[in-house]
Amino acid sequence: MFVRNAWYVGAWSDEIAAGAMLSRTLLGDPVLFYRLADGSPAALADRCCHRGLPLSHGRVQDDCVTCGYHGLTFDRTGACVRVPGQERIPPAARVRSYPVRERDNMVWVWMGDPASADDTLIVSHPFAQSPEWTFLKDRYLVQANYQLITDNLMDLTHVGYVHNRTIGGTPQAHSEAVSRTRATEHGVRVERWMPDSVPPPSYIAVHEFRTPRIDRWMEIEFFAPAVVRIHTGAMDTGTGAREGLRDDALLFWGFNAQTPETETTTHYFWSGARSHVAGRSIGEQRLDSLRITFSEDKDIVEAQQASLNRQPEPLVMIASDGGMVAARRRVAAMLRAEAETVAPVEPAPASAPAALD
Amino acid sequence: MFVRNAWYVGAWSDEIAAGAMLSRTLLGDPVLFYRLADGSPAALADRCCHRGLPLSHGRVQDDCVTCGYHGLTFDRTGACVRVPGQERIPPAARVRSYPVRERDNMVWVWMGDPASADDTLIVSHPFAQSPEWTFLKDRYLVQANYQLITDNLMDLTHVGYVHNRTIGGTPQAHSEAVSRTRATEHGVRVERWMPDSVPPPSYIAVHEFRTPRIDRWMEIEFFAPAVVRIHTGAMDTGTGAREGLRDDALLFWGFNAQTPETETTTHYFWSGARSHVAGRSIGEQRLDSLRITFSEDKDIVEAQQASLNRQPEPLVMIASDGGMVAARRRVAAMLRAEAETVAPVEPAPASAPAALD
Amino acid sequence: MFVRNAWYVGAWSDEIAAGAMLSRTLLGDPVLFYRLADGSPAALADRCCHRGLPLSHGRVQDDCVTCGYHGLTFDRTGACVRVPGQERIPPAARVRSYPVRERDNMVWVWMGDPASADDTLIVSHPFAQSPEWTFLKDRYLVQANYQLITDNLMDLTHVGYVHNRTIGGTPQAHSEAVSRTRATEHGVRVERWMPDSVPPPSYIAVHEFRTPRIDRWMEIEFFAPAVVRIHTGAMDTGTGAREGLRDDALLFWGFNAQTPETETTTHYFWSGARSHVAGRSIGEQRLDSLRITFSEDKDIVEAQQASLNRQPEPLVMIASDGGMVAARRRVAAMLRAEAETVAPVEPAPASAPAALD
Repeated sequence: MFVRNAWYVGAWSDEIAAGAMLSRTLLGDPVLFYRLADGSPAALADRCCHRGLPLSHGRVQDDCVTCGYHGLTFDRTGACVRVPGQERIPPAARVRSYPVRERDNMVWVWMGDPASADDTLIVSHPFAQSPEWTFLKDRYLVQANYQLITDNLMDLTHVGYVHNRTIGGTPQAHSEAVSRTRATEHGVRVERWMPDSVPPPSYIAVHEFRTPRIDRWMEIEFFAPAVVRIHTGAMDTGTGAREGLRDDALLFWGFNAQTPETETTTHYFWSGARSHVAGRSIGEQRLDSLRITFSEDKDIVEAQQASLNRQPEPLVMIASDGGMVAARRRVAAMLRAEAETVAPVEPAPASAPAALD
Repeated sequence: MFVRNAWYVGAWSDEIAAGAMLSRTLLGDPVLFYRLADGSPAALADRCCHRGLPLSHGRVQDDCVTCGYHGLTFDRTGACVRVPGQERIPPAARVRSYPVRERDNMVWVWMGDPASADDTLIVSHPFAQSPEWTFLKDRYLVQANYQLITDNLMDLTHVGYVHNRTIGGTPQAHSEAVSRTRATEHGVRVERWMPDSVPPPSYIAVHEFRTPRIDRWMEIEFFAPAVVRIHTGAMDTGTGAREGLRDDALLFWGFNAQTPETETTTHYFWSGARSHVAGRSIGEQRLDSLRITFSEDKDIVEAQQASLNRQPEPLVMIASDGGMVAARRRVAAMLRAEAETVAPVEPAPASAPAALD
Repeated sequence: MFVRNAWYVGAWSDEIAAGAMLSRTLLGDPVLFYRLADGSPAALADRCCHRGLPLSHGRVQDDCVTCGYHGLTFDRTGACVRVPGQERIPPAARVRSYPVRERDNMVWVWMGDPASADDTLIVSHPFAQSPEWTFLKDRYLVQANYQLITDNLMDLTHVGYVHNRTIGGTPQAHSEAVSRTRATEHGVRVERWMPDSVPPPSYIAVHEFRTPRIDRWMEIEFFAPAVVRIHTGAMDTGTGAREGLRDDALLFWGFNAQTPETETTTHYFWSGARSHVAGRSIGEQRLDSLRITFSEDKDIVEAQQASLNRQPEPLVMIASDGGMVAARRRVAAMLRAEAETVAPVEPAPASAPAALD
């Protein structure tokens, strides 16, 4: 069960090359991405309506995709425009097409009713190409349900335990952080404040703090159903960060899109952007510890999924689960809302009589 | 669901060596092939009736098979002829035996009621050892239902798309071919004629045509439930092939036996035979492109099976599906006919009391 | 379906190092073994009650285990003793603990109701550290139900067929052995006597017999549900072994604990101990053929399991199945007895309200 009427990140822009095809399962659907002659992306169901072969075994030409089995050709809207050997095109011969948008170096895809696709719902994150930010991104295929990744991001007390060798710092500082959770228009926002704490190793590696302890903050924004933006910062302790004096701060802006592949696997698109402190550019390699950090999360949620597969219940809640619980409720509400609507998102079943039938 | 009362190719003859055992799953049954002292093949259920161990863990001696666990011995009819440590042989102690025939370098096995086994139903293909034909064969284990392979063979318009690097030629020539489909006594026959077409690369590699374009023909014979013979030829265009003047033609005789292993896997026995043109023998290596050609088909039907596993329906039919539809109807009719018969093909369930029970 | 109220071998002692954790699935339960500061073993359910992460991703400290996700800490009884960031510990916050005992270099674990754990039921086998016995042990993960291993051990007529290259000797000697099966307090005992038989290769390799043929005996003790002790011996033929004159005998004492991992996989702990003949010590390497012998059994029962998965019935019983049948009946009786008791072996389902709920 997935929320269908939503924008999901389908690919990083550079994963879809001109003339090529990218086949990727999203929310259980096989989706074929390719680019039109004008460079804009297109997305079709990756399954020929004739004999079921994935269209990705065929080829792209003139904004159309031709099946690699018997040559049926489909345009960007999914309409069949050619059946070799016959003039007549069966009315049922079409494949589903998906609305796509390219923003901030990502290709977003709307998996539900095309008529409901609303561009204003795309989450903005314009740091990939900014000269003032150092940027790093990747995609991990995680063997876990996408909500376990959201859970992980909504409760950052895990940082002291899961990431104690990278961005962690002392566990106590995290669990003593002052946390505030509130609903937003499209999700949930959690703010955490860790004053006067020990800087973690990865912070010291990239920033010259002038005090041995630092003030840290984390602003976590969940956009239902599957995007989390995290703005974190750190500054010399007691120098006014809480009051908004952050010019000299170390800033990290994280972006996480946990797009379901199946119920138990997720395309985890993550990126990190760091501000250039005092005009100094820091090489991308300095963000490399993020790869390890996100691998640590991947290990945890995969082990968690395997354990929950075996024994889903019971689970016990604790105080720091507040953000997670609020996020899951938001998704559950969206699912209920969709279940109440009879959405015509699938092409009608077709069994056109064959010419020789 | 398989047609049981039929001959299937169980193995190439050279897969069953004297004194050795070949264990192979056919139609979901574990079958043990071995050779009797006189060289003729035998086939037993590969499962000891005592504790279920596959008999292939034991050994062959004196036309019998002895289980490798506790030594029960079975003769070629499946009757237990010895139980170590006791004189009495429990009446239920027997394994199923299968009728087998060896023809044209293949071992055929009858998977249904032995009383119905009719030798005249074995499809003939005597080219493996003919001095006038160059012959090549192999067996691919295909991760797809056997009928997807039959489908593939019955609609050769796929040749222009799937095999465009090997035997294809121009797709248009294939889809414009004049095609005729008709029922035969044991299956379906499709004839296709492609006059004045561009010769494909693999044809030019083995034959010296005297005209830049050629006349091509294909005669596809389906023998239900799982054998397809294909006779194809090519000749200088306009030199009388259609009228039967084919002495100087390039001839390929293909043989395909798609024996089900399970519902979603198939032992695909294929062979190709090419006539010696004008008395010249051409080395077997010249047929090697067949390995690539059949690999191309394997890739397609495996991708198709995976796609259909996910979403079996809907599918849309087109004109060139005629042969495929006729072949599937023939198999469906055989399945219905068998379902109406209560066939005593399995040994009766047995739970003989143990001596110490 | 497993007998829960029983001691099972969970690990060889040397598999659980001080400060480390051993995670192992037993009877379908994830179990975490570790050692307390005093060296004694402890066992907890390997699943945090908060978010389900296996506790083995965390660490051991001060006789407690701390979860590697959000830091919940559990003591040896499974009680949660700390939740980072909050004073109150939810009453439901606990994990199951298992009674454990360390005996004869093995860690035994009671998988059922802790109140029923009875130390006198632990099977004794004190040969691992005796100076008078050469000892060898290992653990194989076998892809088969544990009862197939018991079956194998209860009917030693298999030795002549499965182990004819190692400990077998002539098959006929085994099937002609005089066998006696009787019920014992905790299981089944089978005695077999093979007078005047050909010594197998592995016997000759370690012992100097003074006669070309030998008298052999085997005493098989099954302790339900999953332990088999086998005492076997061999002596110069006709020198009084049956009457108890065994001082000069070659003695093997085998120990087998087939602890279920799942319904179709088993941790097979096996060991072999051989007496020092006439005061001579024989190096451990001389027992190495045991590794091969037990591998031969592993191959057989795994092939048997795969075959029975496909076709469980019918099976036919023979005379030598007596010990196996008696052992299986004993286990079945224990399962029935447990099914009639409502055992409170699982912690009650918990869904404590979260502080922010």
